[in-house]
Amino acid sequence: MAKISSPTETERCIESLIAVFQKYAGKDNYNCTLSKTEFLSFMNTELAAFTKNQKDPGVLDRMMKKLDLNCDGQLDFQEFLNLIGGIAVACHDSFLKAAHPQKRI
Amino acid sequence: MAKISSPTETERCIESLIAVFQKYAGKDNYNCTLSKTEFLSFMNTELAAFTKNQKDPGVLDRMMKKLDLNCDGQLDFQEFLNLIGGIAVACHDSFLKAAHPQKRI
Repeated sequence: MAKISSPTETERCIESLIAVFQKYAGKDNYNCTLSKTEFLSFMNTELAAFTKNQKDPGVLDRMMKKLDLNCDGQLDFQEFLNLIGGIAVACHDSFLKAAHPQKRI
Repeated sequence: MAKISSPTETERCIESLIAVFQKYAGKDNYNCTLSKTEFLSFMNTELAAFTKNQKDPGVLDRMMKKLDLNCDGQLDFQEFLNLIGGIAVACHDSFLKAAHPQKRI
Protein backbone atom coordinates (compact mmCIF):
# COMPACT_ATOMS: atom_id res chain seq x y z
CA MET A 1 0.00 0.00 0.00
CA ALA A 2 1.29 3.45 -0.86
CA LYS A 3 2.29 5.56 2.11
CA ILE A 4 0.12 8.64 2.55
CA SER A 5 2.25 11.45 3.95
CA SER A 6 0.74 14.32 5.92
CA PRO A 7 -0.30 17.29 3.78
CA THR A 8 2.00 20.27 3.30
CA GLU A 9 0.98 23.77 4.44
CA THR A 10 -0.05 24.67 0.85
CA GLU A 11 -2.14 21.49 0.49
CA ARG A 12 -3.81 22.22 3.83
CA CYS A 13 -4.68 25.75 2.62
CA ILE A 14 -6.23 24.43 -0.59
CA GLU A 15 -8.27 21.86 1.36
CA SER A 16 -9.40 24.53 3.84
CA LEU A 17 -10.50 26.95 1.12
CA ILE A 18 -12.61 24.22 -0.50
CA ALA A 19 -14.05 23.17 2.89
CA VAL A 20 -14.94 26.75 3.89
CA PHE A 21 -16.58 27.41 0.50
CA GLN A 22 -18.54 24.14 0.72
CA LYS A 23 -19.61 24.91 4.29
CA TYR A 24 -21.25 28.20 3.27
CA ALA A 25 -22.31 27.21 -0.27
CA GLY A 26 -24.07 24.15 1.14
CA LYS A 27 -26.43 26.11 3.38
CA ASP A 28 -29.11 26.00 0.69
CA ASN A 29 -29.71 22.94 -1.50
CA TYR A 30 -27.24 24.03 -4.19
CA ASN A 31 -23.64 23.65 -3.04
CA CYS A 32 -21.87 24.84 -6.21
CA THR A 33 -22.23 28.58 -5.51
CA LEU A 34 -22.68 31.14 -2.74
CA SER A 35 -26.02 32.91 -2.87
CA LYS A 36 -26.22 36.48 -1.58
CA THR A 37 -27.44 35.19 1.83
CA GLU A 38 -24.61 32.65 1.98
CA PHE A 39 -22.05 35.30 0.99
CA LEU A 40 -23.27 37.59 3.80
CA SER A 41 -23.12 34.68 6.26
CA PHE A 42 -19.54 33.91 5.14
CA MET A 43 -18.43 37.55 5.40
CA ASN A 44 -20.04 38.17 8.79
CA THR A 45 -18.56 34.97 10.26
CA GLU A 46 -15.25 34.27 8.56
CA LEU A 47 -14.22 37.86 7.87
CA ALA A 48 -16.02 39.54 10.77
CA ALA A 49 -12.85 41.47 11.68
CA PHE A 50 -13.29 43.26 8.34
CA THR A 51 -17.07 43.60 8.21
CA LYS A 52 -17.60 44.85 11.76
CA ASN A 53 -15.41 47.88 11.05
CA GLN A 54 -17.40 48.89 7.96
CA LYS A 55 -19.59 51.90 8.66
CA ASP A 56 -21.14 51.87 5.18
CA PRO A 57 -24.02 49.34 5.16
CA GLY A 58 -23.83 49.01 1.36
CA VAL A 59 -20.24 47.77 1.22
CA LEU A 60 -21.08 44.04 1.17
CA ASP A 61 -23.72 44.58 -1.54
CA ARG A 62 -21.16 46.35 -3.70
CA MET A 63 -18.51 43.68 -3.02
CA MET A 64 -20.91 40.93 -4.08
CA LYS A 65 -21.74 42.78 -7.32
CA LYS A 66 -18.07 43.39 -8.10
CA LEU A 67 -17.09 39.76 -7.41
CA ASP A 68 -20.00 38.32 -9.42
CA LEU A 69 -18.16 38.49 -12.75
CA ASN A 70 -20.80 36.61 -14.74
CA CYS A 71 -23.64 38.56 -13.07
CA ASP A 72 -25.72 35.50 -12.17
CA GLY A 73 -26.42 36.70 -8.62
CA GLN A 74 -24.23 33.92 -7.20
CA LEU A 75 -20.52 33.51 -6.47
CA ASP A 76 -18.90 30.37 -7.85
CA PHE A 77 -15.67 28.97 -6.41
CA GLN A 78 -13.44 30.97 -8.79
CA GLU A 79 -15.25 34.21 -7.91
CA PHE A 80 -14.90 33.32 -4.20
CA LEU A 81 -11.15 32.73 -4.70
CA ASN A 82 -10.85 36.17 -6.32
CA LEU A 83 -12.15 37.64 -3.04
CA ILE A 84 -9.67 35.63 -0.94
CA GLY A 85 -6.86 36.54 -3.37
CA GLY A 86 -7.74 40.25 -3.20
CA ILE A 87 -7.62 40.23 0.61
CA ALA A 88 -4.39 38.20 0.63
CA VAL A 89 -2.69 40.65 -1.80
CA ALA A 90 -3.78 43.63 0.33
CA CYS A 91 -2.42 41.94 3.49
CA HIS A 92 0.82 40.99 1.71
CA ASP A 93 1.33 44.57 0.46
CA SER A 94 0.87 45.86 4.02
CA PHE A 95 3.36 43.28 5.26
CA LEU A 96 5.97 44.33 2.68
CA LYS A 97 5.41 48.03 3.41
CA ALA A 98 5.84 47.40 7.15
CA ALA A 99 8.98 45.33 6.51
CA HIS A 100 10.53 47.85 4.09
CA PRO A 101 9.10 51.27 5.06
CA GLN A 102 11.58 53.21 2.86
CA LYS A 103 11.09 51.20 -0.32
CA ARG A 104 8.37 51.82 -2.87
CA ILE A 105 7.00 48.41 -3.81
CA MET B 1 -7.34 46.53 25.88
CA ALA B 2 -9.24 45.11 22.91
CA LYS B 3 -9.77 41.37 23.03
CA ILE B 4 -7.98 39.55 20.20
CA SER B 5 -10.05 36.55 19.17
CA SER B 6 -8.47 33.50 17.52
CA PRO B 7 -8.39 33.70 13.72
CA THR B 8 -11.10 32.06 11.60
CA GLU B 9 -10.29 29.26 9.15
CA THR B 10 -10.30 31.78 6.25
CA GLU B 11 -7.98 34.17 8.10
CA ARG B 12 -5.63 31.27 8.90
CA CYS B 13 -5.56 30.34 5.19
CA ILE B 14 -4.69 33.89 4.14
CA GLU B 15 -1.92 34.06 6.75
CA SER B 16 -0.57 30.67 5.65
CA LEU B 17 -0.50 31.61 1.97
CA ILE B 18 1.49 34.76 2.77
CA ALA B 19 3.84 32.82 5.08
CA VAL B 20 4.47 30.07 2.50
CA PHE B 21 5.13 32.64 -0.25
CA GLN B 22 7.49 34.60 2.02
CA LYS B 23 9.30 31.40 3.05
CA TYR B 24 10.19 30.54 -0.56
CA ALA B 25 10.46 34.11 -1.93
CA GLY B 26 12.90 34.96 0.86
CA LYS B 27 15.47 32.33 -0.11
CA ASP B 28 17.40 34.91 -2.12
CA ASN B 29 17.83 38.53 -0.98
CA TYR B 30 14.64 39.75 -2.69
CA ASN B 31 11.51 38.57 -0.86
CA CYS B 32 8.88 40.21 -3.09
CA THR B 33 8.92 37.54 -5.81
CA LEU B 34 9.71 33.89 -6.51
CA SER B 35 12.65 33.41 -8.84
CA LYS B 36 12.70 30.33 -11.07
CA THR B 37 14.87 28.48 -8.52
CA GLU B 38 12.52 29.47 -5.68
CA PHE B 39 9.47 28.41 -7.71
CA LEU B 40 11.04 24.98 -8.36
CA SER B 41 11.88 24.65 -4.66
CA PHE B 42 8.28 25.54 -3.74
CA MET B 43 6.79 23.09 -6.26
CA ASN B 44 9.09 20.20 -5.34
CA THR B 45 8.45 20.66 -1.62
CA GLU B 46 4.94 22.00 -1.13
CA LEU B 47 3.31 20.37 -4.15
CA ALA B 48 5.55 17.28 -4.40
CA ALA B 49 2.48 15.03 -4.68
CA PHE B 50 1.83 16.76 -8.03
CA THR B 51 5.40 17.15 -9.30
CA LYS B 52 6.60 13.63 -8.54
CA ASN B 53 3.93 12.18 -10.84
CA GLN B 54 4.95 14.34 -13.80
CA LYS B 55 6.85 12.34 -16.39
CA ASP B 56 7.48 15.37 -18.61
CA PRO B 57 10.59 17.21 -17.29
CA GLY B 58 9.50 20.45 -19.01
CA VAL B 59 6.17 20.81 -17.20
CA LEU B 60 7.45 23.10 -14.43
CA ASP B 61 9.25 25.32 -16.97
CA ARG B 62 6.02 25.72 -18.92
CA MET B 63 3.99 26.36 -15.74
CA MET B 64 6.41 29.10 -14.69
CA LYS B 65 6.16 30.77 -18.13
CA LYS B 66 2.35 30.57 -18.12
CA LEU B 67 2.05 31.97 -14.58
CA ASP B 68 4.54 34.79 -15.21
CA LEU B 69 1.93 37.14 -16.69
CA ASN B 70 4.22 40.20 -16.90
CA CYS B 71 7.10 38.07 -18.28
CA ASP B 72 9.72 39.38 -15.83
CA GLY B 73 11.11 35.91 -15.08
CA GLN B 74 9.72 36.10 -11.53
CA LEU B 75 6.39 35.26 -9.88
CA ASP B 76 4.90 37.98 -7.70
CA PHE B 77 2.35 37.20 -5.00
CA GLN B 78 -0.65 37.67 -7.32
CA GLU B 79 0.88 35.34 -9.92
CA PHE B 80 1.58 32.81 -7.13
CA LEU B 81 -2.07 33.06 -5.99
CA ASN B 82 -3.21 32.35 -9.56
CA LEU B 83 -1.33 29.03 -9.31
CA ILE B 84 -2.94 28.18 -5.96
CA GLY B 85 -6.34 29.23 -7.30
CA GLY B 86 -5.95 27.08 -10.42
CA ILE B 87 -5.11 24.01 -8.33
CA ALA B 88 -7.95 24.74 -5.88
CA VAL B 89 -10.49 25.07 -8.74
CA ALA B 90 -9.31 21.77 -10.27
CA CYS B 91 -9.61 20.02 -6.88
CA HIS B 92 -13.03 21.57 -6.26
CA ASP B 93 -14.30 20.46 -9.70
CA SER B 94 -13.14 16.89 -8.95
CA PHE B 95 -14.89 17.06 -5.59
CA LEU B 96 -18.18 18.19 -7.17
CA LYS B 97 -17.94 15.54 -9.92
CA ALA B 98 -17.35 12.82 -7.29
CA ALA B 99 -20.25 14.14 -5.18
CA HIS B 100 -22.68 14.43 -8.13
CA PRO B 101 -21.52 11.88 -10.74
CA GLN B 102 -24.71 12.22 -12.84
CA LYS B 103 -24.75 16.00 -13.04
CA ARG B 104 -22.86 18.01 -15.62
CA ILE B 105 -21.25 20.89 -13.77
